[in-house]
Amino acid sequence: MTERSSLGVGLVGFGTIGVGVVKVLQRNADVICGRLGVPLRLVRIADLDLTRDRGVDLGGVHFDADANALIDDPAVDLVVELIGGHDVARRLILRALERGKPVVTANKALLALHGKEVFEAARRGGADIAFEASVGGGIPVLRSLREGLAANHIESVHGIINGTTNFVLTQMEQAGESFDVVLKRAQELGYAELDPSFDIDGIDAAHKITLLASMAFGAELTFKEVSIEGIRAITTLDIESAAEFGYRIKLLGITKRRVDAGVERIEVRVHPTMIPAESLLAKVDGAMNAIAVHGDAVGPTLFYGAGAGELPTASAVVADLIELGREVLRGSAGRVAPLSTLPESLVPKPIVPLGELFGRLYLRFTAKDEPGVLSSITGLLGEHGISIESMIQKGRGHAGSSVPIVVFTHPASEAAVRLALDAIDHLPEVTAATRLIRIEDEL
Amino acid sequence: MTERSSLGVGLVGFGTIGVGVVKVLQRNADVICGRLGVPLRLVRIADLDLTRDRGVDLGGVHFDADANALIDDPAVDLVVELIGGHDVARRLILRALERGKPVVTANKALLALHGKEVFEAARRGGADIAFEASVGGGIPVLRSLREGLAANHIESVHGIINGTTNFVLTQMEQAGESFDVVLKRAQELGYAELDPSFDIDGIDAAHKITLLASMAFGAELTFKEVSIEGIRAITTLDIESAAEFGYRIKLLGITKRRVDAGVERIEVRVHPTMIPAESLLAKVDGAMNAIAVHGDAVGPTLFYGAGAGELPTASAVVADLIELGREVLRGSAGRVAPLSTLPESLVPKPIVPLGELFGRLYLRFTAKDEPGVLSSITGLLGEHGISIESMIQKGRGHAGSSVPIVVFTHPASEAAVRLALDAIDHLPEVTAATRLIRIEDEL
Repeated sequence: MTERSSLGVGLVGFGTIGVGVVKVLQRNADVICGRLGVPLRLVRIADLDLTRDRGVDLGGVHFDADANALIDDPAVDLVVELIGGHDVARRLILRALERGKPVVTANKALLALHGKEVFEAARRGGADIAFEASVGGGIPVLRSLREGLAANHIESVHGIINGTTNFVLTQMEQAGESFDVVLKRAQELGYAELDPSFDIDGIDAAHKITLLASMAFGAELTFKEVSIEGIRAITTLDIESAAEFGYRIKLLGITKRRVDAGVERIEVRVHPTMIPAESLLAKVDGAMNAIAVHGDAVGPTLFYGAGAGELPTASAVVADLIELGREVLRGSAGRVAPLSTLPESLVPKPIVPLGELFGRLYLRFTAKDEPGVLSSITGLLGEHGISIESMIQKGRGHAGSSVPIVVFTHPASEAAVRLALDAIDHLPEVTAATRLIRIEDEL
Repeated sequence: MTERSSLGVGLVGFGTIGVGVVKVLQRNADVICGRLGVPLRLVRIADLDLTRDRGVDLGGVHFDADANALIDDPAVDLVVELIGGHDVARRLILRALERGKPVVTANKALLALHGKEVFEAARRGGADIAFEASVGGGIPVLRSLREGLAANHIESVHGIINGTTNFVLTQMEQAGESFDVVLKRAQELGYAELDPSFDIDGIDAAHKITLLASMAFGAELTFKEVSIEGIRAITTLDIESAAEFGYRIKLLGITKRRVDAGVERIEVRVHPTMIPAESLLAKVDGAMNAIAVHGDAVGPTLFYGAGAGELPTASAVVADLIELGREVLRGSAGRVAPLSTLPESLVPKPIVPLGELFGRLYLRFTAKDEPGVLSSITGLLGEHGISIESMIQKGRGHAGSSVPIVVFTHPASEAAVRLALDAIDHLPEVTAATRLIRIEDEL
């Protein structure tokens, strides 16, 4: 191992986050060097768009469209992958790792789907892969799970891990406006993509909770088994009803460990959730993220910060560069397992089906404003063993019109509730499918 | 480097936290081994009290009063120091480090005062020292500052870092009871020591903010220059007045970077602070801790969790054991600088004197309820350039009695305020020293 006077960084993908990485490397070169011992020098960038002015000075940086050449360039000690997606990114990351070059990425989709292959390649190549920026943007939550809380059996993780949906829900609440109106504004402001499905329908959050579940419980990655529900169906009425009962609605990624009759299983799910308005998580507004982690020794913890954006995400990418840079300087790799638990100790853990959840629920029925409707609904709930904590009929319709009826249940089996709703939604007076929102009280 | 089948842990100090460490090592042996690759085996304990039943099974553990022999025992790979204090602890830690044995400690007082000596011994001995448990109990905030936010210029740290004072202030607020009453109850409940000065007068928080300031700003440790004010003088009137104006009072450790005319200096202080009731930090109640860190790239972040207690503190101690255990297994040390910035890059940074603070202030005057008093006070404030945002005279006294007058100022120079208060407190109608509480609005 020779003494190195600097480490060369190669950046693949020069979009928003890539520009942020360049800015942080340049602007904070002094503190980075003061902590790492040598400068992190940006030596090469690869991106298909070679012409757009990104407003950063690239003097001395080799910039072309050839990502493969960047990876193979002996001046590049550390590779940053920020192009996203599964195909090209996967190929490039594998190429780098096979050549023994450490990789930093923010690509949660790739890791949630192909993590096992990528981590095996890292091990084989004797190179590290780091991905702090893939969950919670600038919040060092993966590091905290992997190392800071490593002495714990993690019991649960509840995360606001998608800024777009949190922005939309916060705006709906504050302005009393519908989902469609707020989404349109979020798109105009750049908080939501033109095709917002990835965020709004919970897929991005599902990628992230997949990684968190694996790190928390030593479970193999299981993206395909995550139950996912987005926020499209949330109405201002739901938000107001939640507020009346001391709750706020957040899109949460949730994962919990559960042992029934000696068998350990995990819950992994993304859905709108009512949480106590007084909980810290409920105070997380706008595009901010927060992840509540409960460990058996540490108890409740929470990690809060910007979940996206040029500089916050770059903060996490460059932190990873510093960490992997240390390993390059020492000629070593593999200090910590990427998913916290060593690969040979990772095991597939069965997922608890939604029907086996047991908890309080919010139900919004839509029914004709006619005598006897309430009695039919409550009768069917009762037949399935579901006990009602409170019920509100919201307003009165004109003759023959439909009105919403809002119910908060006592803790109930979700399978039983599903059966009851199936029967209720077939009643002639019920004019739309009943909406269900889960309540998490223990936050 | 031979393959190790386990790592031996020696525990010096078998009090509350020590018992917690034993419990976590035993109870969570499976996850620890799954993450580290080998078991952490408790082989030896040293404590003066050999007889008390701690309620844990010590089968196979060598337990005597000889800490030196423990350190020298070849079966001990990692030393945990939990006796606290400066003298014996310092000697033991130096002994271990000189022998090349890594040390985990929760001893903030020792590090705040003798950190430089200890860190140099670690470097010389080629052994690591870790101290996550010394600040924020189980919250992995030191790791987050040292690695997770390493790409940032840190701009400020505001921390609720003493559980006892936060418990007392929360109780005073919720029960409307005086400091003395609440402190007595806190002592009965075990939330405060019989001699509570260390916590109540802000010294413990000052040790912690010393470490945080050094890690945040690459500054040499400067405990002796920290300005410290505890919570003894806080009254329920102060708490109520704060609430009326949308604030809560918390004992904060605060450190900020400040550049005036090209000269970088830092603020390092502990004092009761009014913070916006809507801020996340203001929601941190009881004995919980939280540290808000603002970085130039990441923006605002917050780390929340239990700041003390047997198991939360043990969570941090054992996390450190796992981290240092990895280094022992790899035959290496010195991966990350203990204070984040490499020792050769640490520099003394001048401290901003309190007089140079500029911000909004809460002032509580105590004056006879006589005509002209308000005018004298406001006149003197005005003469010193201090502009009043609001003023409330609380109740009316009977003839000749004293009443409190509460003032919120616009942003003002603290030096000017001190001069004004000096003049005001010499007015014949003013019957007690005026109380000042700083306001931090940017949280």
